[in-house]
Amino acid sequence: MSAASASSLLILQPGLKLNHFLKPLLVSLSQPSSSSSLLVNPARRFFVTKPPLLPAISRKHSSIVSAQSPSDNDRGSGGRSGALAPPPLVEDLQKIDVNPPKGTRDFPPEEMRLRNWLFHNFREVSRLFGFEEVDFPVLESEALFVRKAGEEIRDQLYCFEDRGNRRVALRPELTPSLARLVIQKGKSLSLPLKWFAVGQCWRYERMTRGRRREHYQWNMDIIGVPEVTAEAELISSIITFFKRIGITASDVGFKVSSRKVLQEVLMRYSVPEELFGKVCIIIDKIEKIPVDDIKKELKSAGVSAEAIEQLMQVLSIKSLTELEEILGGTGNAVADLKQLFSLADKFGYSEWIQFDASIVRGLAYYTGIVFEGFDREGKLRAICGGGRYDRLLSTFGGDDIPACGFGFGDAVIVELLKEKGLLPELSLQVENIVCALDPDLQGAAATVATILRGKGQSVDLVLENKPLKWVFKRAARINANRLILVGISEWQKGMVGVKILSSGEQHEIKLEQL
Amino acid sequence: MSAASASSLLILQPGLKLNHFLKPLLVSLSQPSSSSSLLVNPARRFFVTKPPLLPAISRKHSSIVSAQSPSDNDRGSGGRSGALAPPPLVEDLQKIDVNPPKGTRDFPPEEMRLRNWLFHNFREVSRLFGFEEVDFPVLESEALFVRKAGEEIRDQLYCFEDRGNRRVALRPELTPSLARLVIQKGKSLSLPLKWFAVGQCWRYERMTRGRRREHYQWNMDIIGVPEVTAEAELISSIITFFKRIGITASDVGFKVSSRKVLQEVLMRYSVPEELFGKVCIIIDKIEKIPVDDIKKELKSAGVSAEAIEQLMQVLSIKSLTELEEILGGTGNAVADLKQLFSLADKFGYSEWIQFDASIVRGLAYYTGIVFEGFDREGKLRAICGGGRYDRLLSTFGGDDIPACGFGFGDAVIVELLKEKGLLPELSLQVENIVCALDPDLQGAAATVATILRGKGQSVDLVLENKPLKWVFKRAARINANRLILVGISEWQKGMVGVKILSSGEQHEIKLEQL
Repeated sequence: MSAASASSLLILQPGLKLNHFLKPLLVSLSQPSSSSSLLVNPARRFFVTKPPLLPAISRKHSSIVSAQSPSDNDRGSGGRSGALAPPPLVEDLQKIDVNPPKGTRDFPPEEMRLRNWLFHNFREVSRLFGFEEVDFPVLESEALFVRKAGEEIRDQLYCFEDRGNRRVALRPELTPSLARLVIQKGKSLSLPLKWFAVGQCWRYERMTRGRRREHYQWNMDIIGVPEVTAEAELISSIITFFKRIGITASDVGFKVSSRKVLQEVLMRYSVPEELFGKVCIIIDKIEKIPVDDIKKELKSAGVSAEAIEQLMQVLSIKSLTELEEILGGTGNAVADLKQLFSLADKFGYSEWIQFDASIVRGLAYYTGIVFEGFDREGKLRAICGGGRYDRLLSTFGGDDIPACGFGFGDAVIVELLKEKGLLPELSLQVENIVCALDPDLQGAAATVATILRGKGQSVDLVLENKPLKWVFKRAARINANRLILVGISEWQKGMVGVKILSSGEQHEIKLEQL
Repeated sequence: MSAASASSLLILQPGLKLNHFLKPLLVSLSQPSSSSSLLVNPARRFFVTKPPLLPAISRKHSSIVSAQSPSDNDRGSGGRSGALAPPPLVEDLQKIDVNPPKGTRDFPPEEMRLRNWLFHNFREVSRLFGFEEVDFPVLESEALFVRKAGEEIRDQLYCFEDRGNRRVALRPELTPSLARLVIQKGKSLSLPLKWFAVGQCWRYERMTRGRRREHYQWNMDIIGVPEVTAEAELISSIITFFKRIGITASDVGFKVSSRKVLQEVLMRYSVPEELFGKVCIIIDKIEKIPVDDIKKELKSAGVSAEAIEQLMQVLSIKSLTELEEILGGTGNAVADLKQLFSLADKFGYSEWIQFDASIVRGLAYYTGIVFEGFDREGKLRAICGGGRYDRLLSTFGGDDIPACGFGFGDAVIVELLKEKGLLPELSLQVENIVCALDPDLQGAAATVATILRGKGQSVDLVLENKPLKWVFKRAARINANRLILVGISEWQKGMVGVKILSSGEQHEIKLEQL
């Protein structure tokens, strides 16, 4: 039996200890050692075609300043030589912090698969609703986010001065950028706009309760529709999203109200209109701080004791009928809400939504319907939230256009999916793994990979000479369907060995038939 | 003829001037006026079911500080009243800059479609090659990017001090973050890693020649393979990308060299190894500044005149044979390059690549093969570039692992596609547009939209009562296949009117059959 046909036999015995050709070079399959050597660890190479590369520039690191102590860089480099230099002492190095900055995340493959799955669902739902994707700079002028209503979002602005002494901020939300773009585009836009975005937002927050400083947010906005149909459509899209990922009306609900409810109460007590945003922001804290503190804040904001009492009474209402009794039939608040609940019925999501006058949301710019998605077990923060903001554009000097939208973060939903056991199992899946059985066939394996990729098939090409045991292990890790082995005897016939990994079935196949 | 059947007849006559029901309310179809009114512009509503909403909080804007002048916010609000307040004077407002910050971009829908198309191709190619997607924070510790070799990228670091007095930077590139993550994950990783990322990178550059301060970069990296097969695989993936988007070997080529070429020359003249990164960075400017200036810089870096002459001679070499004659057969430089060109043949991309000793790339950390994609007409900057960086991890205090990768920006490629007339035509496409012919049927239209979306079809639901002329115009704008009209007479029969917009074909369809 020739070496070539022996190597092609390996396909039959995954556990086989390798042919005589590779055997002498078989070394540990273990992960990189924790050795402090700065050189390439040769234990990871199974077939060494040349001596380990020890370029003369082994002190190259010393031209790269280390993290904590740039000045250390210059000391003790010394030794000049044309020969291979010894690896520098580990003591010479300053380790960098290998963690991402406080409050931020890396996305290694498994986390990235989850993020992609989530974003894919955001995008698919947006597409079903006929929305177009947009994006804006993650770094904006600070001025875009500076509002005076005492919002939490303002206090947590991640802002800097840039090298040109401009005040800039990492965006805490997407809506102001959207408003900016709408004003900029002006008359060239065909209303209504239905736009969505999935973007990273930042807040500089004291790191408590595991809250992060960045998250991704899915936004959908409708610009140019004054009717409540727009809010109804937005809530429908969120519910479509929930259903797609397995979440039901018994897991999640929406609390809905309208800022016009507060507005009508404040009008009744002649509270100045300019206090409105501030009052809303104070009331938004109602579930976070004691009611007495809310009252104190309202008082010091200039709201009369009488008005505060009425506000508190109204905020506790959970029934539209009761609300109508108190507010009377003249204002828009009740009419809007009734229309929304009627539309919810036609959209088919009545069981998901409920009226709750205490919902005001924490952004100053809302003017009408506001809503918030919550988990019915009450364990988590709001899952998403939104509302109507008909007056935002004029605060930037533009003409107002009626608008509404929502923000849906990527953090709480993942918590909820975990709670419910609904996190998807997402694994890497590569259709083929292609491996040369002989170092001389590395080029042939490349040809095979190129043919398969040309047909749209994904290929993990084994780039080094590895024992078959290693190859099978890798094939399992990447969930390959087929292992394609390029051995000398088959290659000479224009063929390769193919093993279907699920069934163990195997055969020789002509290149043209791959 | 009843009003209901009249409305359902509208489907037959797109140009029709509307039924008597809508006609009285038909107003201008024009875009938002440039009026300075801060109120919702009623000219955009064609059927007003209630009076325009003029909430009492029409001064709410004054609680939102304007951009440039927060102090303006407090002046002259005055008027307290329960009645509708007049819109504030435009003079009270400070307009914000509606452009994105200098050097950054908005992505309105048409730009976003192009970006998504590009990223989709990046991702598809990465998938074909069995790579897994990863990402890192756009904001990293400044220390991660601080190297002393005089790189352009270092001079242009977009860095700040955050509120906690930490030095942070918007990442100028992705590789240091990848290295950080690899060190952090340590032994839990199965080598080789094949990772890709598509992320935004920033540089704070003087704004000349229309260069931007941010761009997106596609990176593919192979960690754990010391063989040149890895570089060959990376170049193959970029060429696969070019082919997918219609770019050929007569449009684009790759110049390839190895840093080991310079290294072998420097060794010969006993140039200290710690100068290597710096020398590379100086030489990288060879096409940008006069050769004499390069020589001066090399001299002041401490390279001898003799060595400089030899370097200059070697850098002009465009043939591997000639290189071998000069360097001799002992070093790795020639062997690596020969192997790469041999593999290129097997991968099938020989016509794309050429040896060019002047290629060194502008990043200090490369140690072996370096390559650069260029347009053959020579009009544009490098399209992409990459190389081997076997020593990067130790500069961060980790154990080195052999690695190589490339970066491919989203700017130059778009320029090239424009030059070649290869920019794709990407338009919004929504499968259905659903419209109620009567305001009372808005809920019914919502039901129809929900049914279609439940079947995976995209729907633009017309959220207001609009004249049919408007609806047809919108249908054309969104490239709808079908217009679905919900009219009273059909609805009473459980049916809707469906018009295939490409053929003009139309019929009534039962809801269940949609």
